[in-house]
Amino acid sequence: MEKGSRKWRFESNSDLFKPPGISANVVSTRLMQSLNDEDKRVVIPLGHGDTSSVPCYRTAAAAEDAIVNAVRSDEFKRYSPTLGIPEARRAVADHLSRDLPFSVAADDVYLTSGCIQGIQTILTVLSSSPGANILLPRPGFPVYELRAAFAHLETRHFDLIPQKDWEVDLDAIEALADEKTVALVVVNPGNPCGSVYTREHLQKIAETARKLGVLVISDEVYANLTFGCNPFVPMGAFSSIAPVITLGSISKRCVVPGWRFGWLVANDPHGILHHSGIVERIKNYISFAMVPATIIQAAIPQILETTKEDFFSSINNLLREAADTFCEGLKEIPCISCTNKPEGSMFMMVKLDPSLLEGIEDDIEFCVQLAREESVIILPGAVFGLKNWLRISFALDIATLEDGLRRLKAFCQRHVRSSKA
Amino acid sequence: MEKGSRKWRFESNSDLFKPPGISANVVSTRLMQSLNDEDKRVVIPLGHGDTSSVPCYRTAAAAEDAIVNAVRSDEFKRYSPTLGIPEARRAVADHLSRDLPFSVAADDVYLTSGCIQGIQTILTVLSSSPGANILLPRPGFPVYELRAAFAHLETRHFDLIPQKDWEVDLDAIEALADEKTVALVVVNPGNPCGSVYTREHLQKIAETARKLGVLVISDEVYANLTFGCNPFVPMGAFSSIAPVITLGSISKRCVVPGWRFGWLVANDPHGILHHSGIVERIKNYISFAMVPATIIQAAIPQILETTKEDFFSSINNLLREAADTFCEGLKEIPCISCTNKPEGSMFMMVKLDPSLLEGIEDDIEFCVQLAREESVIILPGAVFGLKNWLRISFALDIATLEDGLRRLKAFCQRHVRSSKA
Repeated sequence: MEKGSRKWRFESNSDLFKPPGISANVVSTRLMQSLNDEDKRVVIPLGHGDTSSVPCYRTAAAAEDAIVNAVRSDEFKRYSPTLGIPEARRAVADHLSRDLPFSVAADDVYLTSGCIQGIQTILTVLSSSPGANILLPRPGFPVYELRAAFAHLETRHFDLIPQKDWEVDLDAIEALADEKTVALVVVNPGNPCGSVYTREHLQKIAETARKLGVLVISDEVYANLTFGCNPFVPMGAFSSIAPVITLGSISKRCVVPGWRFGWLVANDPHGILHHSGIVERIKNYISFAMVPATIIQAAIPQILETTKEDFFSSINNLLREAADTFCEGLKEIPCISCTNKPEGSMFMMVKLDPSLLEGIEDDIEFCVQLAREESVIILPGAVFGLKNWLRISFALDIATLEDGLRRLKAFCQRHVRSSKA
Repeated sequence: MEKGSRKWRFESNSDLFKPPGISANVVSTRLMQSLNDEDKRVVIPLGHGDTSSVPCYRTAAAAEDAIVNAVRSDEFKRYSPTLGIPEARRAVADHLSRDLPFSVAADDVYLTSGCIQGIQTILTVLSSSPGANILLPRPGFPVYELRAAFAHLETRHFDLIPQKDWEVDLDAIEALADEKTVALVVVNPGNPCGSVYTREHLQKIAETARKLGVLVISDEVYANLTFGCNPFVPMGAFSSIAPVITLGSISKRCVVPGWRFGWLVANDPHGILHHSGIVERIKNYISFAMVPATIIQAAIPQILETTKEDFFSSINNLLREAADTFCEGLKEIPCISCTNKPEGSMFMMVKLDPSLLEGIEDDIEFCVQLAREESVIILPGAVFGLKNWLRISFALDIATLEDGLRRLKAFCQRHVRSSKA
């Protein structure tokens, strides 16, 4: 039988699930391949989003003990209850209630395998309206485009404005939305920008959502990782204006991204999400064991109760110091400018001026050559939808950051155009 | 502002994501609510699928130790590599290769949070062809219908034939398939039937798939849990006839469903799945941390290597004895007959004859009244698409099973029609 000519009906030329734009995975792979094996210096990872690999950001011992206790118990090898262990849902609700003017009900908390599964859950649930679209921030972490494609949702992009501390362009949102728009996404504290929105700005976003009749998906995976002027304010505080789905996880704040524990919370004081059927669809989506591992759920109450405030504040202090160090160091580097000092998350966007450089056309070329010549990994802004910017992850110890700055400076000085004016 | 009259654009009356047919969750809830609080006897759970809650099916101590070691390491708090820890993929490949005439490559193994996420992954990936449909067995575990709905796939059902040891009705498959059919699903060993397919039957399924140009999704979550005449044969053995996506997990065999570790394997000797773009889409789907918790991935090599053959054979012996006990006991119960003795998994379908009973119309009523009067939980066949059958889970210790049989007998004797011939 002629294998080559046989028709397999599952063949599809559709680009539907192709990563959109410039793929983060493809670029990361290219950067790693550009590293020079001859360079015996350690690679400086200014592209990562995982503090757990940095010794000074160490997971609390109590968190580790909590998991071991759960593993050793005979209670937690089994399937968890359909919607998760009630005590874990209650612990997350209590944890989130501290920052809110009201108490989150445990029943409004759904447990997910990290924030990413929360994203996949809400986007899939929203795809029950054929042709629905959602509005995404640009620059933004490209995971939303990919998960939206798998959920058969169209995406449209509104700008974040660097001149306004990366605030959302609310006029752009109104211009983009149409009858098929079901949600807008806010990431606060911001990845890739490191912005922390004011209470006033969050309220305006909620009011815009209300005007348009859409829900707000508030990605708060970097919640409480703040170290500037603005405190972290959860979007749920404005859920009486428009319904808010909050996504979060212990990954970043407790420094355990590998444990895959997150949540999706329906902030729905007027029962709009319940009435619309969205809550029922969320429950159906996570039924049949689409919840985090039972041992991790079981450990959550202990993790959230025993991790002390000074653990969190010491992490924020480390991040503040790192951000300060990096922004200060950039002042000596000709072609890169820090337009906005980060106030939260572990990232910042810095502006690259390739016109000052010889033989480097754009941010992607900059990052490829930097990897090759200096063994420094930085993700180009193009991956986040913003050409000729760079996303810096500064969640490293100070010595490594300083080493990175030295190499970055050497690289730029070597490539800077000689002025012939 | 008038909350009631406001139009929210995400409202959707679509039934797209409603659980199809008779919902397992709704029926389970109804059964639990039917239990009589006054009855002080222990509830006999003949509806469960989780041996970890039964003391005689105890998880191997080495498996528990492997997880604790991973938790205590500083290496495994981080995100895992995009496609999973290579050693874990290799360990799964080696584990599966033991039953195959060829070696599975580690690169063909994708790690999933339990079998369920493998199902969601392959069904989502197949939905890139608009209007695609898949063929599902009836009776079948209803999870496929729900996950297919979330993946925007149409489902069609072919019968399993009780007179032929629950073999697939191959003629029905040919009659159901059309140009939009992309896959057929086989569950072997079977849930809910407890069937174990012969090598010959599996080959015929592969040949039918080839003829139709569809891929085979082989759900082998009960792989190796066999205790009858037919040994377990993986569908992958016939992947040179038609491409096979194998789904599996450690949940059932290692008695740890709560650990959420499974796999999806592309059995693709002719590169058809690669060529069609399906493999690329699978990689994209699981990218951005849609993989099991790193601590569990890290423990997998140790779990799969150190769990000894006698652990597995002792479980199969327990299941055989349990199945024998239950089938034997049913002989004394007038309205229920064991048409097919189970040979694998932990389930069997038994036929109910409600015409022999007074005031009980069908299987659902039977199960509701049984819960109320005897504190025995059995899922009605209707949940699996087969009215007037019952699905029995016999994965219990013998004393509990015998207690269940006594109560079942008492119930049937109490309700049997008095013959007035």
